Amino acid sequence: MTGKDVLVDRDVWSAADCSMDAALGVVGTRSAMLLLREAYYGSQRFEEFVRRTALTEAATANRLRQLVDNGLLARRPYRDQGRRERQLYRLTDKGRDLLPALVALMQWGDRWLTLDGTGPVKVQHRECGQPVTARLECTAGHHPGIQELILVPGRQ
Amino acid sequence: MTGKDVLVDRDVWSAADCSMDAALGVVGTRSAMLLLREAYYGSQRFEEFVRRTALTEAATANRLRQLVDNGLLARRPYRDQGRRERQLYRLTDKGRDLLPALVALMQWGDRWLTLDGTGPVKVQHRECGQPVTARLECTAGHHPGIQELILVPGRQ
Repeated sequence: MTGKDVLVDRDVWSAADCSMDAALGVVGTRSAMLLLREAYYGSQRFEEFVRRTALTEAATANRLRQLVDNGLLARRPYRDQGRRERQLYRLTDKGRDLLPALVALMQWGDRWLTLDGTGPVKVQHRECGQPVTARLECTAGHHPGIQELILVPGRQ
Repeated sequence: MTGKDVLVDRDVWSAADCSMDAALGVVGTRSAMLLLREAYYGSQRFEEFVRRTALTEAATANRLRQLVDNGLLARRPYRDQGRRERQLYRLTDKGRDLLPALVALMQWGDRWLTLDGTGPVKVQHRECGQPVTARLECTAGHHPGIQELILVPGRQ
């Protein structure tokens, strides 16, 4: 994908309403991403999020609230016996749908930021036990390389 | 993917060396991501990066330097006729390999942060013209849903 190949006139569309930028506005902080990672790993309780991310309680509370406000997590009340009511934080469909982006970031980090090309966690397909990655795929089932991609205006 | 299904003892691995977190340390800022987006779109000159991202010149210069230091962009000198030498910024393999993560973020933003589910730019496979997305795929070619994923320790 080089400048000559893509979007011949790049100025026909506005970068101002870029969906990637909008996505970064919602989840483009380390703390938001770490909390989502923990939600994927199964964390639901405030204490778990704090312990597993090593964020401060204040940062965790603020960021969890933002993720709820933005619809990626939903609160559900629960009460352990004899304790006051607390909240569980659970992934919504919107939050769950971000998983390919997190897997893509993780695999890039595994590949380029470690000495041996492996990370501490592998994602596997339960049924067949094979490793799972985020790949670019067109709806015809091809896996284009970056040179085979073109960008076109998505709305007029 | 729920807490009971994945990594039965989540404490057997350390989140401290998480590859996703490491990746965010390198590209986890809006400005870094916007500059990479422009590099994918074909921008190579400092002025283009400034104009297309609407970042300040100082922020652009700092962040481009970091992306070069981290090996995602490489500088190459050029000289327009009669002008002093300048630098082009070009994607390296390491930078290019982050594209699935950016596409995944873009498609999530298209789907969840727009009124009509479309963004200003579509990625297509040049050869067949079909839209391209970032999908989770195992090496056996399956496309597991989030419920079909398991996490296992990646190194001992």
